[in-house]
Amino acid sequence: MKVALDAMGGDFAPDVTVAGAIEAVSEYDIKVVLVGDRQRLEESLKNKRYPSERISIHHASEVVEMHEAPSAAIRRKKDSSIRRAIELVKKQEADAAVSAGHSGVAMATALFILGKLPNVDRPAIATIMPSLTGYFLLIDVGANVDCKPENLREFAYMGNAYYKAVFNAPSPRIALLSIGEEDTKGNELTKESFKLLKNADINFTGNIEGKDIFSGNADVIVCDGFIGNIVLKVSEGLAETILKMLKREISDVTTGKLGYMMIKPALRNFKKRTDYSEYGGAPLLGINGTCIISHGRSSARAIKNAVRVAADMAGKKVHETIAEALSRDAGKHPSAKEEISHAKG
Amino acid sequence: MKVALDAMGGDFAPDVTVAGAIEAVSEYDIKVVLVGDRQRLEESLKNKRYPSERISIHHASEVVEMHEAPSAAIRRKKDSSIRRAIELVKKQEADAAVSAGHSGVAMATALFILGKLPNVDRPAIATIMPSLTGYFLLIDVGANVDCKPENLREFAYMGNAYYKAVFNAPSPRIALLSIGEEDTKGNELTKESFKLLKNADINFTGNIEGKDIFSGNADVIVCDGFIGNIVLKVSEGLAETILKMLKREISDVTTGKLGYMMIKPALRNFKKRTDYSEYGGAPLLGINGTCIISHGRSSARAIKNAVRVAADMAGKKVHETIAEALSRDAGKHPSAKEEISHAKG
Repeated sequence: MKVALDAMGGDFAPDVTVAGAIEAVSEYDIKVVLVGDRQRLEESLKNKRYPSERISIHHASEVVEMHEAPSAAIRRKKDSSIRRAIELVKKQEADAAVSAGHSGVAMATALFILGKLPNVDRPAIATIMPSLTGYFLLIDVGANVDCKPENLREFAYMGNAYYKAVFNAPSPRIALLSIGEEDTKGNELTKESFKLLKNADINFTGNIEGKDIFSGNADVIVCDGFIGNIVLKVSEGLAETILKMLKREISDVTTGKLGYMMIKPALRNFKKRTDYSEYGGAPLLGINGTCIISHGRSSARAIKNAVRVAADMAGKKVHETIAEALSRDAGKHPSAKEEISHAKG
Repeated sequence: MKVALDAMGGDFAPDVTVAGAIEAVSEYDIKVVLVGDRQRLEESLKNKRYPSERISIHHASEVVEMHEAPSAAIRRKKDSSIRRAIELVKKQEADAAVSAGHSGVAMATALFILGKLPNVDRPAIATIMPSLTGYFLLIDVGANVDCKPENLREFAYMGNAYYKAVFNAPSPRIALLSIGEEDTKGNELTKESFKLLKNADINFTGNIEGKDIFSGNADVIVCDGFIGNIVLKVSEGLAETILKMLKREISDVTTGKLGYMMIKPALRNFKKRTDYSEYGGAPLLGINGTCIISHGRSSARAIKNAVRVAADMAGKKVHETIAEALSRDAGKHPSAKEEISHAKG
């Protein structure tokens, strides 16, 4: 497997992205194409030890900055590292692309260059989150803010295929995020989506409430991108807030400092277990190719993991599985397909 | 001030509700009418010490169970404790009502008996949540799952009036929950709502992202009831999960147990600071009267606080302030009012 890495994307690029690539090729049987300014990348690689036949450079003269609008970046920066990386996938010179750069631009570029899979109306961004017993996938987390029930059905199929492949789970439990477990609970979107999911060819376990998403009772949790983004951000914000508050309270009690020293290894383990970088980034699902969008603040370890997961996804042909599942579903529900084409037209 | 307490509502009723009433009348200059089965309540009061002129009993022969549907409960249980409590407010024999019973039934009954305030399309449930620096109000958290922008404007006015009164804040900072700080970020509902809030007679500070809601940067956070409920429940679930995971990690390291003993007072302080029961429950805003819905698992302390806040709200005439603000707003935006009447018709 060969992964095209947008080496210039991310807050600590290119040194950290290059370090992540080196870790990946040293640890796994994967090749990485570093996409970006050749001179800068050669500098970054200098004096490093790695299996040199596994890392190559593909020159790109431009870098998309974080403040640029996706449409302008696509129009103007035709030689950007992010675009060149995705083009390598299109030309089948790489099996997958990874970028820790501007996520909106990465998504728009992937859509523009690779296109959508047949029967997909809306590609989605999924994210892996830690639960009490392992990990779950939340889909969509920001690509689509106003959704129709058909979109949520697509998300369910996409999440199902991804989870199966990446976690080797034969039958992931798919749940719909809502405000009550009964099928009558929810808003218009979820009530209609519930009916579609019940009849979809997946292991649908019904609605899941906000309080239960971290329980480990569902493997894939489906929602529209507005809610998904808010749930993701609220969770990140709350986890940080709780740790800050605990630290403050601990330093306020007499025995706190000593106690803190004693539980420090446990805090470290906790942070490791809940570290987003274990799965390296958010897969963009529903496009005709494999693309992973990593956090701007990705560490070398996060980049390494993103490269591994991207190679894994490409090897297991997750996007083809999604296309097959949606094509079977479209055969069963021709009206849903028509509705989608209608909405597109 | 006299508060009608649904003494039969809640998981630990009536003993805990009665205990909460006793705490409230002992601590504050408030009278409480315990509404429920007279014999059972007299039993619960027996041998307790309290200023007896401040507690009275209003008999109600029925209790609404947690599994009952609001419409059926209203139709069939005309002598329920929850209904009788709210009727006392309607008849001006009490200034406010508090119930820790079935929240859906409490809301539907309050709406049915007390009615909506003029210019209110959708009453809302608000909830107080802890932040890094104090508390913020999230509105709506479940009463309205599908909203129009006009509803979010109403929620903003209601939250503003409530926060001003209960926290003695002259100009609460009102923010709109969305997926980006710029006014162009969000879904259709929030983008339209942003325009209305910008022109509303409140201290609107713009969009707030999920990651920042606990930062203390906003006093009132406005959203539709579906999102609000999910944010509330995700937060409760995540806080519990983090504490469980931390405990597990702590007990897994050698020095953990001793360290845990040493930080225990800090954990206690943390729990106290983040305790929902400090404000006793969720005010139902937009109805023609004062009504607080408490958590089913409310402790005596939570009931005491709910009674205190209910008396405070009634004394400060929060519902009249809301009516005035919305009437001024309707005068400024007659089209918005028309749109609402149209939607109702």
